[in-house]
Parts: sequence; structure tokens; C-alpha cells
Amino acid sequence: MAEKEVTGGARHFLQMMIQSPVGWLDGTGEYPGIVISSRVRLARNLKGIPFSHRASREQLEEVQLQLRNAQGENKFLKNAIFLDTSELTDIDKQFMVERNLVSPDFLEKKGARGLLVGEKEIVSIMINEEDHVRLQGLHSGFQPKDVWRIIDRIDDELSGSLEYAFSDEFGYLTACPTNTGTGLRASILIHLPALVLTQEIDKVLRGITQVGLAVRGFYGEGTAVLGNLFQISNQTTLGQSEEDIINSLERVTKQIIEFEQNARKTLLKDAQPQIEDKIWRAYGIVKNARVLTSQEFMNLSSAIRLGVAMGMIPDVTVQTINQLMIETQPSHLQKRAGKKMEPAERDIYRADFVRKILSG
Amino acid sequence: MAEKEVTGGARHFLQMMIQSPVGWLDGTGEYPGIVISSRVRLARNLKGIPFSHRASREQLEEVQLQLRNAQGENKFLKNAIFLDTSELTDIDKQFMVERNLVSPDFLEKKGARGLLVGEKEIVSIMINEEDHVRLQGLHSGFQPKDVWRIIDRIDDELSGSLEYAFSDEFGYLTACPTNTGTGLRASILIHLPALVLTQEIDKVLRGITQVGLAVRGFYGEGTAVLGNLFQISNQTTLGQSEEDIINSLERVTKQIIEFEQNARKTLLKDAQPQIEDKIWRAYGIVKNARVLTSQEFMNLSSAIRLGVAMGMIPDVTVQTINQLMIETQPSHLQKRAGKKMEPAERDIYRADFVRKILSG
Repeated sequence: MAEKEVTGGARHFLQMMIQSPVGWLDGTGEYPGIVISSRVRLARNLKGIPFSHRASREQLEEVQLQLRNAQGENKFLKNAIFLDTSELTDIDKQFMVERNLVSPDFLEKKGARGLLVGEKEIVSIMINEEDHVRLQGLHSGFQPKDVWRIIDRIDDELSGSLEYAFSDEFGYLTACPTNTGTGLRASILIHLPALVLTQEIDKVLRGITQVGLAVRGFYGEGTAVLGNLFQISNQTTLGQSEEDIINSLERVTKQIIEFEQNARKTLLKDAQPQIEDKIWRAYGIVKNARVLTSQEFMNLSSAIRLGVAMGMIPDVTVQTINQLMIETQPSHLQKRAGKKMEPAERDIYRADFVRKILSG
Repeated sequence: MAEKEVTGGARHFLQMMIQSPVGWLDGTGEYPGIVISSRVRLARNLKGIPFSHRASREQLEEVQLQLRNAQGENKFLKNAIFLDTSELTDIDKQFMVERNLVSPDFLEKKGARGLLVGEKEIVSIMINEEDHVRLQGLHSGFQPKDVWRIIDRIDDELSGSLEYAFSDEFGYLTACPTNTGTGLRASILIHLPALVLTQEIDKVLRGITQVGLAVRGFYGEGTAVLGNLFQISNQTTLGQSEEDIINSLERVTKQIIEFEQNARKTLLKDAQPQIEDKIWRAYGIVKNARVLTSQEFMNLSSAIRLGVAMGMIPDVTVQTINQLMIETQPSHLQKRAGKKMEPAERDIYRADFVRKILSG
């Protein structure tokens, strides 16, 4: 009976997610005109149970059970919703990926895999992904330290109920050695259109990798750069304290924010009509198009985001652009429409949706 | 004194032209959604005076004097304004070309050359162009017969005051043999975006030339096709009556109008979202751009004109698009601004002007 109630709640939650507020899209935090979001995730594994890819069905269930019990005792997580990935439709699965709550691989795996989602999706846990526990904090704007503080406290509390696999020599043990040590990956999703336009971006990206950080596209490793959005994250998890990792990411990102701010000033000084033209045309197109691909929207929304950040388009907020970025993606559109749609049909639906939102 | 008064009136007229109503742009006449304008011109020369390119200064002056005298006695022309081309600034000259009142060559010629412009610019006369008299009737929409009737009557009346060079064998004699005979050139400025989109245009244009008509771009011989605007005109002036020439042009044009109407229906049936998308994007761009070249505006205005004709854009009239087509051209913008502008400056001014007009 209790299990059924949870499932019912999960189903309702899944239905409501399309309209629920999403913390990391709300345009709060520092530098909302440049930084979309700050993310921190911790990889943890339970002592005495093989890593997920080697664990038996029963062992995966054991992990899930322990996590669910720990959840109930955790003051940050006790109201989180549990979603059993085996109960998700294909559209729901892709929806979760678009929402940045899960990795695509995770959803294809069999056995006891689940997801815990906290209020406004700021905190979430993937259960039995590559590691038994992938605890994620994701919030809007530039606030890696605040996000880290939340995740650190949840981790502390969880470690009171769970016994983690830990080595005095290496730190937290993980399925992939690149995560061993702190198990911490912190990343910043940042919008750098001016550095792209002034062609300084390659130099800046080289600088980032030279100080030991990684740069990826919007949807993580191996994805293309869309809409001038870059994800900057730490590479190493071993041999540095959590604070050092967060501080280093914060310091470098602040530097990049300054570069972007300067590039925006340069553009306004040297090519104001051209920049304004680019921004207003993008706005004019998305407000009028009747057919709009996801990729085109991402690229046009980059110019609009820049215009909003520069105060040129007073009718649009950062939050609106953030939400559109996610809500125009294929599974979000299909969940909203309540049906499967072919790409051509989606492109029409997307154009209608964007027009509706931007016309207030 | 009398001469000074006329010059003063001409100067005032030149200043006011930018704001004066222009008959051929007002969106009246038949098929205004497809046919921009109907034009008829007659070439005439005065008996006993060499053609303009061989005439002496005094002979050119004699032609002009005779024309001015005939004008005063002509009930259609007596209120026409006389403009001495030697008094025009470079911007005024180009402005007249943009307005379809003169040929570019005409304005570079020395000696007594003048222009008579009637009410709403529907009737005009170039004095001492290639021929002594080039009488033009230009009105909006598809009405070649009505325009011909006006021009025919003016010609009749003028021939009461003037003695034309005429041969019983050849008809009216002209500087270039291609105009000899009736001296009549009739043309239709037509918008054929659907035939271009359905790729039927080449076949249609071939058909036009096969029946002995000519097709040119917007600004006459040798100009590129801009904005899917085509000018269809008669080739031969000899061996056919004026009525036959007009009837033939009318018949062929009606056929082309029908082809275009069918192509528009086909587009709506087979690719409605794509056509609507093309139209609304063009509208969104011109309503938002901050930099706009003349050529880009011409091409975007083609899609908008199609949208207006199809009833998709209720806020815009055919007249507005017709006027913008002319008023966004370089000299029109410079006359409006009251100063010379470099191309880059014009592109910004043009975008501002279009935005202002389309925002009501």
C-alpha cells in the first residue's frame, strides 16, 4: 500500500513537473545575465556493495533501500519525490535529461535505479548511476559556494545513516577513478556571446584548460556548444580539498565573467548598431516564426539573452529566457502537448509556444 | 520674374515631394496584391528639329520652349510642375530615378532638359531625353487600358499644339528605331513570389518572351530582379496599333496573374507552415532590425507583400509596402533626413524608418 501511494505521488509529480518552478532557471544568484547556473555533485558508494555496474539485482535493490531509508531521516530530503526509472515513459526519461536531473546513460540501465528530486529541483540524487549515490545541487546564477554548502550539509547528514566506501589514502572510492577522492564535480553554466563575437573565446577556453579546469557544451561531455553556453568544471577530484576545488572554480569563473563583461563593453563601443541589430533581429524572428527548430532557438536565444542582460529588451526577463531554453526542448514540448510529436510537428508547436510566451 | 516664380515653385515642389501622395503606390487598381503598377509611355519628336543627341543647345531650348507653351494650353498638364534638370542636386536626381520619373542617363545630359510632373506623379514628361518628348503615365495596380486612355488623350491634345515628326510609312519617328511606329511602350510591374518559390518562374518568363514581350528587373533594362518584382513590357512598337499592343500586354499579364494565383494556392496547400514562417520571419526582421540594406529590405518586403496579399498580416496595407519599397531607397532616405549619408549611416536610418512606419 505504501509503495502504491508513493508511485501515485510520483505520477502526479511527473505530470506537474512541466509547470513546476525550477530553481536553477529562476534568474536569481549573482551575474544572472552571464551565469545561468551553478552545479555541485558528489559521487558516493556504499561500503561492502560492488559498484553499480558490477552489482547484482539484489545488491542494487539493497542500495536503493538504504538510500530511501536515509532519505526519510534526512531533513533536506525527507520531502523529496522518489521516481523509479523503470516506471518512466520514453518522453519522461528524455524530459529528465533535458531538466538536467539525470544522465542519458542512467535511464537505459536495468534494475533498481531511482531518482530523488527535492523542492524546485535544486537538490536531487541519482541512485545506482555509475556510483551508488550521485548527489546533485543545481541553482541559478553564480553561487557555487552556496550550492556547495547545501550539498555538503546533506552529505554530512546522509553519512550519518549510510556507511560510505572510503579509503584513508584515496578518499571516497568511486566506480571511475577520475571521481575518486572528494567525489566532487562543480560546474558553472556560463553564457559567453561577446567573447565568441570578438573571437577571444578560443584564447579564454585555452586558458581555462591550462589551469586544470574542463570546458564542455551545455549537455555535458561530448555535446556541441549551442547558444554560446559553456560548462566550466573541475577536472581533478583527488589531492585537493572540496573548498580548494570550489574556490578555484569560483576564481577562474570570476575572471571569465570579467572578460565577458569587457567584451560586451567593447562590442557596444565599436559596433553598437550591429550588436543591437543582431539582438533585435533574433527577437523579431522568435516572436514571429511559425517553424522553429530546437537548435535555431538555442542560437537565437543567445542573442536575446545578451540583449536582456544588456537591458535592451525590457519586456523579457532572464528567467523567461532560461525557462524557454529548457521548455522548448523536444520532450518538454511533448509533455506539454500531452502527446508524441514528430520533429516537423514539434517545430511548429515550438514556434507557437515561444510566440505565446514572448507575447506575454 | 515669371521664370523665378516657377523656379521657386519647383524648389518647393522638390522639398514637398518626399511627403506628397504618389498615385502609382497607393494600392488601388485591379489585383493590387500582385500587380504594383501599370505604365504607358509615348516617344515623340518635333518635326524639323534634330533628335536630342544631335540637337544644338539652341535647338534643345527650342524644344523645351515649345513643350512649355503646349503645356500651358493642355488641360491635363497645365498644373504640372516644371523641373529644370540643371537645377537638381545629385540627391534630387537620384530621387527622381527612384520615383520612376526619369531615366538615370537623362539626368547626366547637359543643355535644356526638363521634367514636367502632374498631380500625384501619374503623368509626367521628360523633355529632351533620347526623344524630345517622353510622355509617361504611371498608376497603381493592373489598369494598363485606363493609363493608356489618359496618355492617349494628352497626346492628342499635345499634337494640336506641337507638330510631331511622323512618317506615313513608319509612323512616329524616334531617335532609336526600336521605338519607331507607335512610340508606345507599356509595362506592368508585377510581383511573382509564388512562381519563384514553386520554381515555375523560368518557364513563365520563357513563355512571356516567346509571345514577343520583354521581362526586366524593377529599374528597367539591365537591372537585377529584386524582391521578385518583374517588369513585363511590349518589345515591338511598329506594325501594331496602340490598342493591339495594350490588349496583348493585358491578355498575357492576366494569364501570369492566374499562374501566380494558382502557385499561391499550391503553396498554401502543400507548405502552409513554411510559407507562413517565411512571411512572419520577414515581418519580424524588418520590424526589429537596426541595420537594413536596401537590397535586404527589397527581398524581405517581397515576403511581407505576399503575406499582406494573402491576408496574413492585417496590420499592413499594400500601399504601405509600396511606399516603403520606394521610400527606403537611398535618395529618398537622404531627402527625408535632409542630408547626405554614407551607406552605413543610411542602413541604420532605413531600419529606424521602416520600424517607425510598421509600428504605426
